[in-house]
Amino acid sequence: MSDLIIRPAVPDDVPAIVAMLADDPLGAQRESTDELAPYRRAFERLADDPNQRLVVAIRDGRAVGTLQLTLIPGLSRRGATRSLIEAVRVHADERGSGLGTRLIEWAVEESRRQDCQLVQLTSDATRIEAHRFYERLGFEASHLGFKLLL
Amino acid sequence: MSDLIIRPAVPDDVPAIVAMLADDPLGAQRESTDELAPYRRAFERLADDPNQRLVVAIRDGRAVGTLQLTLIPGLSRRGATRSLIEAVRVHADERGSGLGTRLIEWAVEESRRQDCQLVQLTSDATRIEAHRFYERLGFEASHLGFKLLL
Repeated sequence: MSDLIIRPAVPDDVPAIVAMLADDPLGAQRESTDELAPYRRAFERLADDPNQRLVVAIRDGRAVGTLQLTLIPGLSRRGATRSLIEAVRVHADERGSGLGTRLIEWAVEESRRQDCQLVQLTSDATRIEAHRFYERLGFEASHLGFKLLL
Repeated sequence: MSDLIIRPAVPDDVPAIVAMLADDPLGAQRESTDELAPYRRAFERLADDPNQRLVVAIRDGRAVGTLQLTLIPGLSRRGATRSLIEAVRVHADERGSGLGTRLIEWAVEESRRQDCQLVQLTSDATRIEAHRFYERLGFEASHLGFKLLL
């Protein structure tokens, strides 16, 4: 396969990112690819926030992966900054290619560059394969993740 | 008991917040209450970030609880903003008083005011009482929480 680039997302990437968010057993129920305006507004909020990193993985000019990294300062752990990984997606054509690993490794390296002392994420309890994937990358499933829909 | 106020933390609250972070089975191993400089630097980073809400609960002029709420814009879920609760602590003198509930209710209300569509948090797998507490407040333990220390 040709080279892969991981770079900050730009407004023109929004349709491809949304398509990847929707092409997923859980995402299919939550996203609406025919109405992009709310996603474009959200993109602007992300772009305005210096603690956000929304990236895309590009191969042959096409977005084939995405991930959102949030830097979170805090008092806990002697004033540690932590990072949070959300919205990891790999294009169906690229699954099994190691791209997921590349994306998470990018997030971990960026977290080190930003002096984070901890990287965290939650994964839906039904995503058993994802759990093994994160454990192989050194993450520990030490917590329960609670959600409340408003 | 006298009235309780939940308000944004100010620099003078840092020692009391750190004392609460440290007075905890897990926090005791992670915090150092005799060296406040890193906490004060972290407080400045929080104060500079408009998506952060670090609050203290005050009773009789004394900080008896704390919580950090982070607003996280994102593309997922049709451009939903979510919030993340971290670093919830209730002073030992106040445990069982309902103050934890008051703090979480404040965070949920603030999340609604900020048009969040989801509130999330992780809780260490060993904090069984905390899990029941969050479930009573309507949170669902739908996820596993993964951490990687850097």
